[in-house]
Amino acid sequence: MSRKPPRIDTRNIVARSRIFNIEELHLTFSNDEQRVYERIFGTRNTSVLVVAVDTDDNFLLVSEYAAGSQRYETGFPKGILEPGENPLQASNRELREETGFSATHLEALMTLSVSPGYMDHHTHLVLATGLRPEPLDGDEPEPPELIRWPRRDIAGLLRQPAFTEARSVAALYLANDRLDYS
Amino acid sequence: MSRKPPRIDTRNIVARSRIFNIEELHLTFSNDEQRVYERIFGTRNTSVLVVAVDTDDNFLLVSEYAAGSQRYETGFPKGILEPGENPLQASNRELREETGFSATHLEALMTLSVSPGYMDHHTHLVLATGLRPEPLDGDEPEPPELIRWPRRDIAGLLRQPAFTEARSVAALYLANDRLDYS
Repeated sequence: MSRKPPRIDTRNIVARSRIFNIEELHLTFSNDEQRVYERIFGTRNTSVLVVAVDTDDNFLLVSEYAAGSQRYETGFPKGILEPGENPLQASNRELREETGFSATHLEALMTLSVSPGYMDHHTHLVLATGLRPEPLDGDEPEPPELIRWPRRDIAGLLRQPAFTEARSVAALYLANDRLDYS
Repeated sequence: MSRKPPRIDTRNIVARSRIFNIEELHLTFSNDEQRVYERIFGTRNTSVLVVAVDTDDNFLLVSEYAAGSQRYETGFPKGILEPGENPLQASNRELREETGFSATHLEALMTLSVSPGYMDHHTHLVLATGLRPEPLDGDEPEPPELIRWPRRDIAGLLRQPAFTEARSVAALYLANDRLDYS
């Protein structure tokens, strides 16, 4: 793991939208091999994903329309960090906006990367417990549908056709481990 | 989960690179709320990620340079499906190219989505066992560094600073469950 990283010969923004930049990197590896790679980056490169568990040991999931896959997806509440927020603050805000509950206990689990080969995006996973009703208006176009799923039935959740996102699957297991050993 | 999906009023490609397209969607939700969303898509929208386990019950991991995060990342071998390949064929090819081993047993575990809010990308997770040396030249700029990690030390792997990708974390747990219950 101590290899010499490639030299970046040139880097250019080759495409740009309202949210994203696509950068082309010309690289020379330490063995003189050359490659042209692309990476996507933007201002929205840090997010949170919140695994909230209620007193009956249910996970709080939401179903929301996803523009990338163009269908409704089920997963844990998540969102982009707003300026000045730390991950725990962002988690409580997203939880209130998407489920109507706030948490009295928030705990960082792990920070995941998303497609690091092409992107520079990190998601902080946060475990939220001690829930109480405290809704907050967010920017959701329609209220997310709240789904309570029993923690004892992880296998059943993994069979749900709309529960497929890599970050939600990773968070499900990490949170479950944390709860079992706490 | 039976909500009426939003109507797509207009869709336009607003940016384009060699690999990616960025599309802008103007949506009207069933409650008449309107939003403008962006999605990234390309020709490389299906990939495989291979959890290979050797006879000593070690996971085969690789360390490779990632252009998105601009550092070396540790994870399971992965790559894009080539034309005409099914996920198991692509998995065996990627495994040979990145680790130098082929597998006599390949088994689909689950198909994950990656950031479905913004992207349309799916990754088939495949469990590979019955390994034997059978290297194949790939398009890697430098040979990936092979790391064997004992399956009994999943907690230790999750603490490695270069092992952070959401898909690899999800695959680690899913493969471990499958191996424990087989």
